[in-house]
Amino acid sequence: MFPKTTLPLLIFIFQFTFHQPSPVSASDPDPLQDYCLPSPHTHQCKNSSSLTVDDFTFSGIKHPGKFTNKFSGVPVSATVFPALNTLGMSLVRADFEVGGINVPHYHPRATEVAYVLEGKVYSGFVDTLNKVFAKVIEKGEVMVFPRGVLHFQMNVGDSPATVIGSFDSQNPGSVKLPVALFGSGIDDELLEKSFGLKSKEISKLKKRFGIEKED
Amino acid sequence: MFPKTTLPLLIFIFQFTFHQPSPVSASDPDPLQDYCLPSPHTHQCKNSSSLTVDDFTFSGIKHPGKFTNKFSGVPVSATVFPALNTLGMSLVRADFEVGGINVPHYHPRATEVAYVLEGKVYSGFVDTLNKVFAKVIEKGEVMVFPRGVLHFQMNVGDSPATVIGSFDSQNPGSVKLPVALFGSGIDDELLEKSFGLKSKEISKLKKRFGIEKED
Amino acid sequence: MFPKTTLPLLIFIFQFTFHQPSPVSASDPDPLQDYCLPSPHTHQCKNSSSLTVDDFTFSGIKHPGKFTNKFSGVPVSATVFPALNTLGMSLVRADFEVGGINVPHYHPRATEVAYVLEGKVYSGFVDTLNKVFAKVIEKGEVMVFPRGVLHFQMNVGDSPATVIGSFDSQNPGSVKLPVALFGSGIDDELLEKSFGLKSKEISKLKKRFGIEKED
Amino acid sequence: MFPKTTLPLLIFIFQFTFHQPSPVSASDPDPLQDYCLPSPHTHQCKNSSSLTVDDFTFSGIKHPGKFTNKFSGVPVSATVFPALNTLGMSLVRADFEVGGINVPHYHPRATEVAYVLEGKVYSGFVDTLNKVFAKVIEKGEVMVFPRGVLHFQMNVGDSPATVIGSFDSQNPGSVKLPVALFGSGIDDELLEKSFGLKSKEISKLKKRFGIEKED
Amino acid sequence: MFPKTTLPLLIFIFQFTFHQPSPVSASDPDPLQDYCLPSPHTHQCKNSSSLTVDDFTFSGIKHPGKFTNKFSGVPVSATVFPALNTLGMSLVRADFEVGGINVPHYHPRATEVAYVLEGKVYSGFVDTLNKVFAKVIEKGEVMVFPRGVLHFQMNVGDSPATVIGSFDSQNPGSVKLPVALFGSGIDDELLEKSFGLKSKEISKLKKRFGIEKED
Amino acid sequence: MFPKTTLPLLIFIFQFTFHQPSPVSASDPDPLQDYCLPSPHTHQCKNSSSLTVDDFTFSGIKHPGKFTNKFSGVPVSATVFPALNTLGMSLVRADFEVGGINVPHYHPRATEVAYVLEGKVYSGFVDTLNKVFAKVIEKGEVMVFPRGVLHFQMNVGDSPATVIGSFDSQNPGSVKLPVALFGSGIDDELLEKSFGLKSKEISKLKKRFGIEKED
Repeated sequence: MFPKTTLPLLIFIFQFTFHQPSPVSASDPDPLQDYCLPSPHTHQCKNSSSLTVDDFTFSGIKHPGKFTNKFSGVPVSATVFPALNTLGMSLVRADFEVGGINVPHYHPRATEVAYVLEGKVYSGFVDTLNKVFAKVIEKGEVMVFPRGVLHFQMNVGDSPATVIGSFDSQNPGSVKLPVALFGSGIDDELLEKSFGLKSKEISKLKKRFGIEKED
Repeated sequence: MFPKTTLPLLIFIFQFTFHQPSPVSASDPDPLQDYCLPSPHTHQCKNSSSLTVDDFTFSGIKHPGKFTNKFSGVPVSATVFPALNTLGMSLVRADFEVGGINVPHYHPRATEVAYVLEGKVYSGFVDTLNKVFAKVIEKGEVMVFPRGVLHFQMNVGDSPATVIGSFDSQNPGSVKLPVALFGSGIDDELLEKSFGLKSKEISKLKKRFGIEKED
Repeated sequence: MFPKTTLPLLIFIFQFTFHQPSPVSASDPDPLQDYCLPSPHTHQCKNSSSLTVDDFTFSGIKHPGKFTNKFSGVPVSATVFPALNTLGMSLVRADFEVGGINVPHYHPRATEVAYVLEGKVYSGFVDTLNKVFAKVIEKGEVMVFPRGVLHFQMNVGDSPATVIGSFDSQNPGSVKLPVALFGSGIDDELLEKSFGLKSKEISKLKKRFGIEKED
Repeated sequence: MFPKTTLPLLIFIFQFTFHQPSPVSASDPDPLQDYCLPSPHTHQCKNSSSLTVDDFTFSGIKHPGKFTNKFSGVPVSATVFPALNTLGMSLVRADFEVGGINVPHYHPRATEVAYVLEGKVYSGFVDTLNKVFAKVIEKGEVMVFPRGVLHFQMNVGDSPATVIGSFDSQNPGSVKLPVALFGSGIDDELLEKSFGLKSKEISKLKKRFGIEKED
Repeated sequence: MFPKTTLPLLIFIFQFTFHQPSPVSASDPDPLQDYCLPSPHTHQCKNSSSLTVDDFTFSGIKHPGKFTNKFSGVPVSATVFPALNTLGMSLVRADFEVGGINVPHYHPRATEVAYVLEGKVYSGFVDTLNKVFAKVIEKGEVMVFPRGVLHFQMNVGDSPATVIGSFDSQNPGSVKLPVALFGSGIDDELLEKSFGLKSKEISKLKKRFGIEKED
Repeated sequence: MFPKTTLPLLIFIFQFTFHQPSPVSASDPDPLQDYCLPSPHTHQCKNSSSLTVDDFTFSGIKHPGKFTNKFSGVPVSATVFPALNTLGMSLVRADFEVGGINVPHYHPRATEVAYVLEGKVYSGFVDTLNKVFAKVIEKGEVMVFPRGVLHFQMNVGDSPATVIGSFDSQNPGSVKLPVALFGSGIDDELLEKSFGLKSKEISKLKKRFGIEKED
């Protein structure tokens, strides 16, 4: 009775349907079990009976990491401390020699709460309205850097400084702006226009961060 | 000293315990890394070094899809554009010939923001209090369809129309109501009672949407 | 030294900045406190000391609600049981006289787990690939209806039936398709084209669901 | 021109970078597809075409489980009812003989909504300010236990009681406090100091919950 | 034409509809702005221009809190450090005199990452399968306590110990089990049956935790 | 009987308890109702009956915004289009004159899917391993910029270009790196050390971005 339109109607409705994927999922929210230490081969959670307390403790930040330019940063994400997988947290230990800096950077996936273990650290961030919040914080003091916000630190004391940062993601990520901007290979013209710098100045910056060869 | 009750107490407490699963997880929230293009064999994220910019661009909606009944819809979910996996977004391109419609439907897993690329499109939705919000929107205008809410579109201009929809899920899903109700095989009696239609009327609708054979 | 470009550069960068809203937020995820019963005047959480156990219990579904067309549904969302606010759950009690139906509908914001308290209930859903999953379930049996998926129920036994549904949202919402499609005021032409029905048939359906006057 | 500092600058910036993991994820939030029943071998979602309605129904709680000490609890998590995987919900059936109790416990990952199927059940919880909310609820009444909050139940009627609990997690977990505290092997000194009990009293409690041998 | 069934059909469909609440929401997930320090009167986010860097730093845990029974705990939630509001994190400083303990407890809303600032601390947790993971950790070492899991600490060194714990919630909550069980007022009979203790023993425990008067 | 330890035990346990806040919440996840347009005075959701379809449509990006330095960006967040509140999405329209650029920037709270409406646009991003992904995309093509990742665009065609970006947050935020770094007031010494630039060079950059006065 509706011979002409039946089939097309059916088809055009199906055509728009989204198919079901079998996704490789990855997220930072509520866990589905107490913990989930990934088994390297099956990529499933290890069996509880094969775990010991040593799987849940970490001693890799008892001492500073290797210093370069007066700074050392040792991230403790789920990659190096697998117990953190699915638990939504990670740490970093940052050590500063006198005058050392932690360059302007941001963590795309986490808020950071920084606790000063030792020293006097000029610490600050720039919010998305471009307002700077910065001051010197000392041993035992805390500063919070909201998720995704650009921040920085500098040891302004006359002795080494150490900061322990904690994050609300098992893998917060870190974008160091000097190298991300000038050491990654972004097009020269775009950088010149963005910063109002001359070709030669951009070239110098790129060399400094390893992209272009020295003359 | 408490010999009679010891063992049972222990057992009844254990018995109620939930066991730990090794789940096949799937969710749309905060990513755990920059991106995660699934490797077909291991179902893990591909290594960054094996990816190129072409993995992050998509040119499949430069032109309309195949039209059926004056309508063409091309979804761009993580299935066809794997870079979207874990990133929480997807798109759709919808093209309408003059008078073409996008039948009443909803997306179970996403809000849609529709941008009119070309044409005049009667667009609307019905909220859960059964109130209709509908009007004609034109080139350059935007309408939002809240998550899970029934909505529809019709080209009411005298030239073709195109809409780009974006979603806050990598796989929003789509339930086209005419075919979901009458073309899926729901029990006749239930449909008759639900719509107050006669058996013969339901039968006609089912034939139209391909469930029952024509006489 | 860079007099010509300084100001414009500054301005064009600011112009694109997103401003900070003071949003009226509303979401269903992890609570920030044990519970949060809204105070009607301040819209803040009531103080713990002003609450009693009666705030956390509910006796409104001990009996069926008012029947219409052999069906009664009593939702227990955070609106009627304020203790559910921020706790991410709600309930519904559905009662069916013999032959009674719960018309095809969906909940935009929740999965439903339905437990048959009494009777034999034909229950089913249609997934987004348009496949029907339906069968008769009996007293003590359970069926799950995934979030946003179209589902339906009918008492196929010879005595009354009761179902308790639980949801993973404090306000799952409910879209009853017959009335949402034909009783809300969607444009006639769009409905005719969507269902392949004649103007007169759409008109009848609209009258049945209260939109248009009877002749 | 900046030969001395170029390389170190580059290195110290890279050193702090977080690496990308290929995580075994596990979470309870928004699903990415209608449903996802895990395939035992591939750990991917089963294909829709291989599923039947029986995969979405469960009849394992039509009757009480095995009683121990007048109590029986049968959890229905995604482990025993795989359709619940990714859908964010689960159930439990609890049966109490006269005087039977459900010991103080909590669910780390879910709110519970408890519905009394049969009987009179003294039900209560302790909030994090240490306030008890408890009363007797009867057939057809509901009580909500907020996520992570310590709660308990006791059949105070003169006939068996049954409760159906629903959760907003596919695997809520359950910590039974008597056995978790005294039957798990926590250090004696710590327990003595925590509860102000003598060594001998702790020893008795541990024996009762199966940790230490009876004399 | 369908005079008898029109009205009832309409009504029974509406009756089941969930109403829209104006919720007092509260959750711990992705922020909607850089930060949101609540204004005490309007309960909206304070304006960025009224904030200074002192709003984002906290110096209240430079020193231990007040000791009671050789233990001192100072939580730094969003209540005392409002900058944490909406940022999903908080801290705690715990100090132990020699032999001091942090009684078995759990945080309903957060994972804890504990960093030993000073001393030797026996630290452990009990998972939901009732397995204990415990060991002594020292200055500079880290242990993770998964969300909602029962854990405990004891200074086993011969000098004071200090631990800094960080959480992935602005208000993790804390349930101290000795007082929650015996100092909150849970029914005696239920406690007797749960722990297999005599009425007199429960009474003693209750007195110890302040519920009942001393003789 | 335990007179000496009773009170202290009680106190030390209470002291560590977290208090319940009445938070000003703000998040981007699952909505609790169909939509929530904030009422300016009460900060609650407006009543459905006071809304019209015009509340859900937006025509403010039919034309480019005001150009500065060959670029114009018009964000459509929940601030300017209140219907987006709680719906988890927003848009931006970006217009480029020939040679115009969108400077390196990132969105702290959203993935962006960019659709080229007109023109040829060099588009790219830098991932957290410092790898650049960039190419020229044309009319009708799409590129995805993962959440929080640094990205940039430049019109490399010989006619104007327009891009529509969509986001999975109602307020993605935007950090323009040139001005955030050099126009916000970060300490000079820290910038000099971070970029390996001389004091004079930093001073020039700061002047360019409006922080310091021209000579």
